[in-house]
Amino acid sequence: MADPQKPQTPKKGNDNLKLPTRADDFSEWYIQLVKRAKLADNSDVRGSMVIRPNGYAIWENMQQVLDGMFKDTGHQNAYFPVLIPESYLAKEKKHVADFAPQVAVVTHAGGKPLPEGERYVIRPTSETIINRSFTNWVQSYRDLPILINQWANVMRWEMRPRLFLRTTEFLWQEGHTCHATEAEATEETLRMLDVYERFAVDYMAMPVIKGQKTESEKFPGAVSTYSIEAMMQDKKALQAGTSHMLGQNFAKMFDTQYQSKEGTKEYVWQTSWGVSTRLIGALIMTHSDDAGLVVPPKLAPTQLVIIIIGKTPEERGPVREKAHALAAEAKKQGIRVLVDDDETKGPGFKYAEYELRGVCLRAELGPKDLAQNQAVLARRDNKAKETVSLDAVVSRAGQLLEEMQQALYDAAKQRMTDNTFEVNSVEELKTKDGFLLAHWDGTPETEKRFKDEFGLTTRNRPFDLTQEPGTCVLTGAPSPGRIVLAKAY
Amino acid sequence: MADPQKPQTPKKGNDNLKLPTRADDFSEWYIQLVKRAKLADNSDVRGSMVIRPNGYAIWENMQQVLDGMFKDTGHQNAYFPVLIPESYLAKEKKHVADFAPQVAVVTHAGGKPLPEGERYVIRPTSETIINRSFTNWVQSYRDLPILINQWANVMRWEMRPRLFLRTTEFLWQEGHTCHATEAEATEETLRMLDVYERFAVDYMAMPVIKGQKTESEKFPGAVSTYSIEAMMQDKKALQAGTSHMLGQNFAKMFDTQYQSKEGTKEYVWQTSWGVSTRLIGALIMTHSDDAGLVVPPKLAPTQLVIIIIGKTPEERGPVREKAHALAAEAKKQGIRVLVDDDETKGPGFKYAEYELRGVCLRAELGPKDLAQNQAVLARRDNKAKETVSLDAVVSRAGQLLEEMQQALYDAAKQRMTDNTFEVNSVEELKTKDGFLLAHWDGTPETEKRFKDEFGLTTRNRPFDLTQEPGTCVLTGAPSPGRIVLAKAY
Repeated sequence: MADPQKPQTPKKGNDNLKLPTRADDFSEWYIQLVKRAKLADNSDVRGSMVIRPNGYAIWENMQQVLDGMFKDTGHQNAYFPVLIPESYLAKEKKHVADFAPQVAVVTHAGGKPLPEGERYVIRPTSETIINRSFTNWVQSYRDLPILINQWANVMRWEMRPRLFLRTTEFLWQEGHTCHATEAEATEETLRMLDVYERFAVDYMAMPVIKGQKTESEKFPGAVSTYSIEAMMQDKKALQAGTSHMLGQNFAKMFDTQYQSKEGTKEYVWQTSWGVSTRLIGALIMTHSDDAGLVVPPKLAPTQLVIIIIGKTPEERGPVREKAHALAAEAKKQGIRVLVDDDETKGPGFKYAEYELRGVCLRAELGPKDLAQNQAVLARRDNKAKETVSLDAVVSRAGQLLEEMQQALYDAAKQRMTDNTFEVNSVEELKTKDGFLLAHWDGTPETEKRFKDEFGLTTRNRPFDLTQEPGTCVLTGAPSPGRIVLAKAY
Repeated sequence: MADPQKPQTPKKGNDNLKLPTRADDFSEWYIQLVKRAKLADNSDVRGSMVIRPNGYAIWENMQQVLDGMFKDTGHQNAYFPVLIPESYLAKEKKHVADFAPQVAVVTHAGGKPLPEGERYVIRPTSETIINRSFTNWVQSYRDLPILINQWANVMRWEMRPRLFLRTTEFLWQEGHTCHATEAEATEETLRMLDVYERFAVDYMAMPVIKGQKTESEKFPGAVSTYSIEAMMQDKKALQAGTSHMLGQNFAKMFDTQYQSKEGTKEYVWQTSWGVSTRLIGALIMTHSDDAGLVVPPKLAPTQLVIIIIGKTPEERGPVREKAHALAAEAKKQGIRVLVDDDETKGPGFKYAEYELRGVCLRAELGPKDLAQNQAVLARRDNKAKETVSLDAVVSRAGQLLEEMQQALYDAAKQRMTDNTFEVNSVEELKTKDGFLLAHWDGTPETEKRFKDEFGLTTRNRPFDLTQEPGTCVLTGAPSPGRIVLAKAY
């Protein structure tokens, strides 16, 4: 059985050409990288992608970590229908206004047209249909809180699709909770934002700015929306996760009430929060380089590849034996390892292929290495190579993976720091590139001017920025504090 | 934070009534059990269910085990679009004939009607869209085999929906593979059937009959279909998993070719195989009783609940402390454990609730137990109770879980054996109830008569039955060997 992680036969001549560089064309670099590292393909379905094994394995690793974090904070998984009655969406005014133009509508089923009024939309998000269940599940204050998460596919018709970043269909998790009080719901909203931040920092090696979205940028139907925002290598912002305090908006539409200790009927207070396969796009644009994909070891599908070198069966035999022994040892240490014993391709080709695909460490092992009881270890991010005694290869690999995880975070953090500016003039708005901390008068009119005149959107009002009053960088009107402006995905 | 596994407040008077018995009304017993054990609810979406946390946790446990088995046999996960161009389905004649009447069709999206010819169906299965990708991925014999699995939701419009067993939307996994030769594809088809059998036996504690489906029962587009068939407590058969040898049918429709070692262009040989959330229905109907859900420990969401007994804070305090210490110890041993410290409900109510919900073991711990350094352990399946010294509770719980897993299998196996009959006359066809091993002349006409006249369908031609020629039980025409006939879900 062929190893499914091993590089496939090159297809066409230009498949072997180098990627465009980030400096030349960041956008084209990204798309080519996604395709050539076999992370995802376009499909014949408008704006929908095929997530290939190398990309899906990253998602699986993300899921596993996040799912553990959700369960540690008391949440349980459940599953709700992918189809939502069209009438549900309409119950929340802002919700339907935003989502109606984006949905895919099922009008025929079982060989017949569905009666008007019995049509369905494919879920763009599930607040409505989940609230319908909550209404059945909640009776008394003793039933609260209800802490639910769903792993699911959702669909929002995209006019300008882009692999992982904006796709018509995407995979995500959506948390949905009910609480007895506003304070508890707010606490939950911020708790899950903290979980997302911790995941971004500790696993994705991606620093983020945590804060509150503006009125115009909040989730349709929410009272307030919070986000984590990351900076990509082209200095654009990417919203990497959101957490919404929904107040009692959906509870009122679906009559989700509980009986309080005092015997009165009260609407529940709710939250929802989500991250999606978009995070894979964020991961790529945060760490990868002109040679291809770079993935933080904690999320990498393959952390170590051992490449067998040797021209003859006599040479390869003993090397193979040792390689598999090392792989078994690495596996025991929890390292995701692969042995490449393909004789039809040369080492140089393979090195480039595994760099393209984002394998964190490469061990090169040939007959001469074996004779000298050593192997060469090469790190993906900084391309550093070192010769290590065979007895120490696995433990050294473990260290290098930890060092690489930290180094990726440090580099991303440094880049964000270097490209975050306090901006106090129109001139600076025009010339500075990155996260711009600016005073804003709080009006949607000025927010629109940021967008129309400078291509900048409000990202969030950061929590960890001391908020001092000032005057709006555009209008001179009073401002309660600075907000992050950036070009964004 | 309330424990989300703890019983919720009873809703209505009749929620506390007993389940119907299996003997009185098996079908109603099943539906009530599913709802009252909080496994699943109906929804407002035709034939679609809401899978509640207690049901979804069973699916998660199943997924985890199966996913490991798939990966151990070399498969990788990927994800393909939920929408399939209508035109794809039409490419395989039998495929479209069977699935077209069952699909949900998207005709509007992004606020506009889709042009005729650009409509989509929600996937009823993914052979077509996955083959479209395979065509891009396969170039040379060196790319083979390709071994892919997808975890996904699928949709088949159901006229007679039934929670878990037949739902419009269901969750499943679908394996899809490409091979260079017919022999390898056949080997893969049977390998995965074996994986399903092993999962059914070792984890679901559910014996199955493994064999080949008849021509009329095979998957639309397959060359041959194999199944595992299980016997429910009402002696009806339930098809619990299928594995298909697809030959080159889809490869030819989608032009999925590879270049052989000899340089010729060849179509790949393919397989597909799947199991779904239907398995949860199978699990329920195999093991549960009139008191509620019984789940084999290996798949149970909660294996042990420790119930704190005591009327006053003085009584409950030390009990609580010990209960949590025991729970921590159990958790360390890999036991999925829950502590119930709810003072608002009495022990009797709780015992019934946890039996209904399928918790495998109950530990009762009160102040008197504590004084005597003991607890009472009660097993869900046989209701056996024993008093165990506190030092031994966790290790004894571990043993009891193993014993229960084995006992459930033994009981199910005995039932299947007792209700499997060689049937040699029309009289026996009428009177025997269970798996009927009968000679059949192999014609679809006779197969239809089994169905129309006796309500029996062909399940499969079992592998482990010595096949001796005989004469058809209905027509007297020659028969190559016996087939399993049964009433079926």
